[in-house]
Amino acid sequence: MTIAVGIFGASGYTGGELVRLLARHPKVRIAFVTSERHAGRPLAEVFPHLGALPDLICRPLTDFKSSTDCDVAFCALPHLTSMDAVPELLQRGTRVVDLSADFRLRDEDIFHTWYGEAHRAPNLLTEAVYGLPEMTGREAIKKARLIANPGCYPTSILLALAPLLKEKAIETETLILDSKSGVSGAGRSAKQDSLYAEVAEGFRAYKTIGHRHTPEIEQELGRVAGTTLKVRFSPHLIPQSRGILSTCYVRPRLPLTQHEWRDLLATHYQDEPFVEVLPVGQHPSTLQVRGSNHCVLGVALDERTGWLVVMSVIDNLVKGASGQAVQNMNLMMGVEETAGLEQLPLYP
Amino acid sequence: MTIAVGIFGASGYTGGELVRLLARHPKVRIAFVTSERHAGRPLAEVFPHLGALPDLICRPLTDFKSSTDCDVAFCALPHLTSMDAVPELLQRGTRVVDLSADFRLRDEDIFHTWYGEAHRAPNLLTEAVYGLPEMTGREAIKKARLIANPGCYPTSILLALAPLLKEKAIETETLILDSKSGVSGAGRSAKQDSLYAEVAEGFRAYKTIGHRHTPEIEQELGRVAGTTLKVRFSPHLIPQSRGILSTCYVRPRLPLTQHEWRDLLATHYQDEPFVEVLPVGQHPSTLQVRGSNHCVLGVALDERTGWLVVMSVIDNLVKGASGQAVQNMNLMMGVEETAGLEQLPLYP
Amino acid sequence: MTIAVGIFGASGYTGGELVRLLARHPKVRIAFVTSERHAGRPLAEVFPHLGALPDLICRPLTDFKSSTDCDVAFCALPHLTSMDAVPELLQRGTRVVDLSADFRLRDEDIFHTWYGEAHRAPNLLTEAVYGLPEMTGREAIKKARLIANPGCYPTSILLALAPLLKEKAIETETLILDSKSGVSGAGRSAKQDSLYAEVAEGFRAYKTIGHRHTPEIEQELGRVAGTTLKVRFSPHLIPQSRGILSTCYVRPRLPLTQHEWRDLLATHYQDEPFVEVLPVGQHPSTLQVRGSNHCVLGVALDERTGWLVVMSVIDNLVKGASGQAVQNMNLMMGVEETAGLEQLPLYP
Amino acid sequence: MTIAVGIFGASGYTGGELVRLLARHPKVRIAFVTSERHAGRPLAEVFPHLGALPDLICRPLTDFKSSTDCDVAFCALPHLTSMDAVPELLQRGTRVVDLSADFRLRDEDIFHTWYGEAHRAPNLLTEAVYGLPEMTGREAIKKARLIANPGCYPTSILLALAPLLKEKAIETETLILDSKSGVSGAGRSAKQDSLYAEVAEGFRAYKTIGHRHTPEIEQELGRVAGTTLKVRFSPHLIPQSRGILSTCYVRPRLPLTQHEWRDLLATHYQDEPFVEVLPVGQHPSTLQVRGSNHCVLGVALDERTGWLVVMSVIDNLVKGASGQAVQNMNLMMGVEETAGLEQLPLYP
Repeated sequence: MTIAVGIFGASGYTGGELVRLLARHPKVRIAFVTSERHAGRPLAEVFPHLGALPDLICRPLTDFKSSTDCDVAFCALPHLTSMDAVPELLQRGTRVVDLSADFRLRDEDIFHTWYGEAHRAPNLLTEAVYGLPEMTGREAIKKARLIANPGCYPTSILLALAPLLKEKAIETETLILDSKSGVSGAGRSAKQDSLYAEVAEGFRAYKTIGHRHTPEIEQELGRVAGTTLKVRFSPHLIPQSRGILSTCYVRPRLPLTQHEWRDLLATHYQDEPFVEVLPVGQHPSTLQVRGSNHCVLGVALDERTGWLVVMSVIDNLVKGASGQAVQNMNLMMGVEETAGLEQLPLYP
Repeated sequence: MTIAVGIFGASGYTGGELVRLLARHPKVRIAFVTSERHAGRPLAEVFPHLGALPDLICRPLTDFKSSTDCDVAFCALPHLTSMDAVPELLQRGTRVVDLSADFRLRDEDIFHTWYGEAHRAPNLLTEAVYGLPEMTGREAIKKARLIANPGCYPTSILLALAPLLKEKAIETETLILDSKSGVSGAGRSAKQDSLYAEVAEGFRAYKTIGHRHTPEIEQELGRVAGTTLKVRFSPHLIPQSRGILSTCYVRPRLPLTQHEWRDLLATHYQDEPFVEVLPVGQHPSTLQVRGSNHCVLGVALDERTGWLVVMSVIDNLVKGASGQAVQNMNLMMGVEETAGLEQLPLYP
Repeated sequence: MTIAVGIFGASGYTGGELVRLLARHPKVRIAFVTSERHAGRPLAEVFPHLGALPDLICRPLTDFKSSTDCDVAFCALPHLTSMDAVPELLQRGTRVVDLSADFRLRDEDIFHTWYGEAHRAPNLLTEAVYGLPEMTGREAIKKARLIANPGCYPTSILLALAPLLKEKAIETETLILDSKSGVSGAGRSAKQDSLYAEVAEGFRAYKTIGHRHTPEIEQELGRVAGTTLKVRFSPHLIPQSRGILSTCYVRPRLPLTQHEWRDLLATHYQDEPFVEVLPVGQHPSTLQVRGSNHCVLGVALDERTGWLVVMSVIDNLVKGASGQAVQNMNLMMGVEETAGLEQLPLYP
Repeated sequence: MTIAVGIFGASGYTGGELVRLLARHPKVRIAFVTSERHAGRPLAEVFPHLGALPDLICRPLTDFKSSTDCDVAFCALPHLTSMDAVPELLQRGTRVVDLSADFRLRDEDIFHTWYGEAHRAPNLLTEAVYGLPEMTGREAIKKARLIANPGCYPTSILLALAPLLKEKAIETETLILDSKSGVSGAGRSAKQDSLYAEVAEGFRAYKTIGHRHTPEIEQELGRVAGTTLKVRFSPHLIPQSRGILSTCYVRPRLPLTQHEWRDLLATHYQDEPFVEVLPVGQHPSTLQVRGSNHCVLGVALDERTGWLVVMSVIDNLVKGASGQAVQNMNLMMGVEETAGLEQLPLYP
């Protein structure tokens, strides 16, 4: 069986990453890629690293208005754009993995509040399945017509904290999430703030108040915890291309030792192919997951102050976006969950 | 008047930075520099950027056992080494600015606990003046024989939080300090962990439990707050050479608005030449202080969760080490506090 | 005496660098700065590192149409724009240091060929003095009304080769110039090619054929050599913010040893405050001149193949642009040539 | 069929890269890895990105003194060490791909001159096959007992120039090779020169005279050209982890246009899976081959000066070392040449 896939919005970093992974996926054929801006040009002109794929030509989105020749559509379109494209795709029977934020929030009002626009396909918000396999449960993903692929920051944080909240092992009122991301997360469009000379040697926080991943994190942590909750979420920009590290400060409810906290996580994830929990005393680095679909967790208990620190690293473009999208597709289409995702990290 | 200075331990990054600043200080003459490892070699061979200073020759520490021809000695020796050199210097009447950690902790037992050795000059621990001019009070510094120059992380954090604790505006039980530092903080000695290829793209935490700056931060914040307190301090390594950003999460005791928090800090520092408080909504970047003695602060109040976030950036080698040492020397010697420190940051 | 200076085009990297240097120049007062795009805003909002200069407000160029209140105008306007602004300034009696390429080429036709437009102030092309003090001769600079401040690549190459051509020590038909520059040379405007994620780990050549610095290099090397000549000039982009290294491959005409080549350069530059010639066997690094007005040269003779290799490093924004402009102003105004330029490099 | 491989010297960067590629090779089983320094430890402790391979334990070299359980041995031992280990392996019938420089030079005297020691297995120098499949000819590789895997710089240069020399299209007396490499080429051992803070912003040349890759380049270019020749080879260090770009300046013997030069190369490599020749006007970037076994070439003809410029990029750890070693093994063992090497580059 070969799965025919279409990639909508292939000229951004997540689009390029989907192509990198799917072009080498043993069960997949890339049927088409779209880019409005580069319509008609070979994708290899847009992304010089794709010279080995000279036959992929960017097509305009409108080519696929009324029909598609794909089994699964990956939507890597900008936020607030995807919700206009997805309903039609579904109507035609195409299953969709949407990498934008448009279908991640279940509550239409919360969406409106944080994204500043009314949702234009609100009926799909409850149907969409939030696609974090290690947390969501695979059954729902397998049956889904529409996957809301999680955000990069939320992925790193949910993998760190969901097991602890599920076990009611930590308090829900004191969740401090200090996250740091490489600049590819800001996308490929030309912005002064993303210039090399502005980023290098320029570590900084941004959107300390009001980052749009906040309600997504709260929704999903709350679902696992069985209660509503709020988080203090602070994103920062690292002078590097890829990688997210989230440092999560939480208060224990259970009187566990450091090794027991580590074991709780390690046991929870023992059968997961993409999650590794480090021994006590080791710290995860973004470099050790670069280019791979892995998440690496580390745990430290500060007995002096009582805070538990959980650290989590992912590659924001892989497990934080395109790799996770492929993982979801694998589940939807009944192929091996790790297919196309076996690559080991690139180090150094 | 020309102040003759000696620099003990000139071949590390803080030593090189002292030379950079002091060689262009209008009131200073560098009398000598020492380096055991490079004794006899021109310092310009050790530090290629010092080619304009061909006459500085590294001398062995032992040359200065019984006499010095300097008014002020800067000790940039390794931790646990400085305490063996400083007493003699003081006995000879030389005033000392010590950049190591050896004289920062006032309590001999706390020193022993965190540094793993008994202090060998414990009588000096209470005499040494902790030299953070904006917090310590200038009078004590002016009269000091021995300045314990603050650590880099503590400097960034104390400047952010001391005014708030002094005003009893925040709680003392909930201080979460997430700090990020460039790799020059790890020194110039050859270590695999500090190699370019290991650091680039490799953001990570380290010493999440037990970093030695913890008791220093607690001592000084506690002194200002008038109570003992504990902090959750997490250092991280940024893939860049210079700069520290500390993100501090604290709980307000006073019901201030975001602008009022900002104004409280801005008012506190209004006469300080080296501290800038950004308007609400702006975030400090390490790049905007690089090479300068400045500290830039930013404030954000999360009304949804009640946490106050104070961000602070410094150049770890300048305000976090050598620049602050020069500032302390200026105070001690009665020259303009900003002398030799007027350089604007290098951007980009 | 205080020199009042105006900076036209202050919001680019060379403009920002002029402000950094001139604001701390002992004989200078910045009378005004202009920026069309940011007119009315404090320059400190445009450049966050200039927070210590809150009173500099960007003014529109038109404010200075008919009069200026400055002794010297620095034009850091874009190429092909400066030639419209400079004539008026000169008419009013303002002396000008122009950092654009508009007045560097003496031949109007060559300008037209390489810049694609007819020159609009051709009468000034022969009057303008090419301002490379170590090569041009200081007398011409002192008397000039209009200085054409050299390009960054040409500066690095001319300092390396002019003495050898002047002595007729090398051939003029075989000049291969392989130059590498940090990305600040591409300016501060938002371009996809200059994004952090496109530049990091992406060393590459660009404009191998037809870079506009080619005729400038040929004009000035030819002037020194007393003949017309052509060069093979290849620029490359380094993933770093600042710095140029030029590796020049030339054929000796004189049968000198490696040490004699080194001494020829060292003797030539022995009284120059800003040029250093390394001992045989050492290689210059861009890091050792960062932030300073220095040029460092290194020489290697390949006896096996007969090629002489001369290497040259400068900071493209200082000796390659704004620092050199200040040096020229110092000469024009009769102040110490090194005034405001004594800063040592920032290392690391 | 599964090929059992052993990796001698797995704790350096080329060793780690061999593991990354071979662990996911469809026809390979890693039988063992060795590391003297880390004997007994899991390789995943040495290389944190290999957490998915917890069962690989470093064994001492001596474990394999008298027997091996592998079909092919990859030797990633240090130069001057490999020649002591390889003879025994061959005697036992193990085929060897040697990544050191020990068997690349065919002439014992030249080896002695450049490496400073007499060769200790000189009889193998003529037997060893220099393993650059695109140049060497595949038949010799298929039959070889011992492959001398090419150096990183030579690979980039030979792929650029061998076709031109083979066609006698360029002169052999004027070969100027200006190469630039990321710092992983300097290895993983702790050296001050390789520290992050010494490398970042510090582009520089090194070993301008006497780099040991010089005779290797001359031997192989000479073999193709059918004559002895000498090259001017200048290596430089780029502040990035991976990638080599070589800029080659050569003199045409044939009067071809720029497009004809491009087509000559493109035609030569049209059936090669790992070599891409860019259209005229495009420049290769190291980023576009990162993590892959690809080489990308670009051509520019300077009609003004008559120089032809050929640019070549590879990933120094893949096509410049471990990827090429796997490619050679594939040929030796009769499996698909691209097996295990299909990964697309990681961008950004």
